[in-house]
Amino acid sequence: MKILVTGGAGFLGARLTRELLARDTLAGRRIETLVLTDQIEAPADLKADKRVESRVGPLLEQCRALVDEPFDGVFHLASAVSGECEADFDLGLRSNLDSTRALLDALRACTDRGAAPARLVFSSSVAVFGPDAAVPMPAVVADDTLPAPQTSYGTHKLVCEHLIADYTRKGFVDGRAARLMTVTVRPGRPNGAASSFFSGIIREPLAGEESICPVAPEVSHPVSSPRRTVQGLIAVFEATREAFQGRMAMNLPALNVTVRQMLEALEAVAGAKVRARVRFERDERIAGIVANWPTGASAGRAARLGLQPEQDFAAIIRQYIEDSAATPAALKGMQ
Amino acid sequence: MKILVTGGAGFLGARLTRELLARDTLAGRRIETLVLTDQIEAPADLKADKRVESRVGPLLEQCRALVDEPFDGVFHLASAVSGECEADFDLGLRSNLDSTRALLDALRACTDRGAAPARLVFSSSVAVFGPDAAVPMPAVVADDTLPAPQTSYGTHKLVCEHLIADYTRKGFVDGRAARLMTVTVRPGRPNGAASSFFSGIIREPLAGEESICPVAPEVSHPVSSPRRTVQGLIAVFEATREAFQGRMAMNLPALNVTVRQMLEALEAVAGAKVRARVRFERDERIAGIVANWPTGASAGRAARLGLQPEQDFAAIIRQYIEDSAATPAALKGMQ
Repeated sequence: MKILVTGGAGFLGARLTRELLARDTLAGRRIETLVLTDQIEAPADLKADKRVESRVGPLLEQCRALVDEPFDGVFHLASAVSGECEADFDLGLRSNLDSTRALLDALRACTDRGAAPARLVFSSSVAVFGPDAAVPMPAVVADDTLPAPQTSYGTHKLVCEHLIADYTRKGFVDGRAARLMTVTVRPGRPNGAASSFFSGIIREPLAGEESICPVAPEVSHPVSSPRRTVQGLIAVFEATREAFQGRMAMNLPALNVTVRQMLEALEAVAGAKVRARVRFERDERIAGIVANWPTGASAGRAARLGLQPEQDFAAIIRQYIEDSAATPAALKGMQ
Repeated sequence: MKILVTGGAGFLGARLTRELLARDTLAGRRIETLVLTDQIEAPADLKADKRVESRVGPLLEQCRALVDEPFDGVFHLASAVSGECEADFDLGLRSNLDSTRALLDALRACTDRGAAPARLVFSSSVAVFGPDAAVPMPAVVADDTLPAPQTSYGTHKLVCEHLIADYTRKGFVDGRAARLMTVTVRPGRPNGAASSFFSGIIREPLAGEESICPVAPEVSHPVSSPRRTVQGLIAVFEATREAFQGRMAMNLPALNVTVRQMLEALEAVAGAKVRARVRFERDERIAGIVANWPTGASAGRAARLGLQPEQDFAAIIRQYIEDSAATPAALKGMQ
């Protein structure tokens, strides 16, 4: 089968691609081709695989060519992140809404010409819920909690969920949406996401660097490891339509932790000296965005697919350390 | 103040405009200009009023010119109806989604150049809820029921609600959405809406004509009279932001009635001979769409604005007869 991964050179896209290449099959079929679209080149290890084709350029432009290219499956991960969308309203609309619409219309054009509807997994987000002080919302958001996004990013994700559901209802695609929790620990440098510090306060101290936490230690948040998130995306791809119970979107499993619990886990895994590298310095812009996010999430439908969150945050830190073993420089702070 | 009414030459738009002209003020300010955009010319009585300007053409094209024309208030009623959207997917996206986006961007362009954000009332629909057999949903949908639209029309309405909420959050417009119930009794001829028969089974018998009811008499549905609907749109325009309790969308009041109750009311008001002109003949297409609509609705937030549904369906029929008195030919069946 031929698979498209948008945002395929990014952190999650590359990890997903590696996992798919290792499995070699998806939903019981052999993976012949994996097309990765992104703004940047795919990592060298992926490009070295004969099954992988890396295409560089804005998704909106790339979609125009896709009307003649049927895919069996699509993982649609490409997205402008929350901080970017708040800073640049037009960029957000173009990257998240217009690009998804163009992708859906390209897939639909293929179906119109007789191709089987592509199975599509859309990476939605827990940010769809986005309560603020004025909106009654449970502390832990469930699959069937009424969303009230308070960011453009969350709005776009929710809007795309509904567009995908309608294209699916019409038989143009076979779509489903997985609401990702905040993925941590991400390697590399901070990015434009308001949630970036949820990785930074672990990653930088482990690398011997100081890290600033822009929110209070009491802030609670639903997180997931990269490994569980990739597992979730694949499980949602392979799920039956019935598992969604008539809806197209499903929360992925969350570990609901406070910043304080994250730092306690950091101390337990790497020592007090490492933890001491985190300094609290409130950032009103970041804290304001995070205050409009849920403090926790549940994932009943995902549990029925056998998906579970990590047992505790220490397990997530250990996973990061294990994954970084190939590049030990990232962990020099632990010595 | 200067007001824009999209779909202003249509059934509800024209009635709303007449009501606004009669009131002469809105939210405490004098109405100087009412611009009506529509695919057709506005009715002669409206065009005869010096305050009214009628513009004919697709909204999507008209919006391009609106970037230089600030409005104080907008009633956005223009929409392709449910049956049209199911029959022509592209038409639905263009008329309902692209046009709303173009309108929002035009209003935003005016705000960007220093105009006060226009107050915008969007006519959403009870069709956003759209349960089907697979989706658990209360029999009576409330303001805070989780939508699961099962038509393109309902999807577009829900998507626009969320886009308007985000443009509002950013300060580009001051938007709010009123979820209209099925408006009945509409004068004139059947239209492309799947709900058209909810007017037809009253209107046609009163005019001496046979009418076909495409669904079973047990079908229950939330309806509202044209008068209450227009009152609701104006009340939502004049409401404080607080009345929405942190959300941008509000159900308008509904009278929840079965087809059988509607026909009993028809008999009570106009006699058994009139009722006998309704024949049941199931239409699978229509019945399938209607089966995915809620059987009733509640409107708690609207009630706090003092809005109530009609007392019973007989009152709605009497309102139609009263409103049709100017054109007694419509009621020849009663003689």
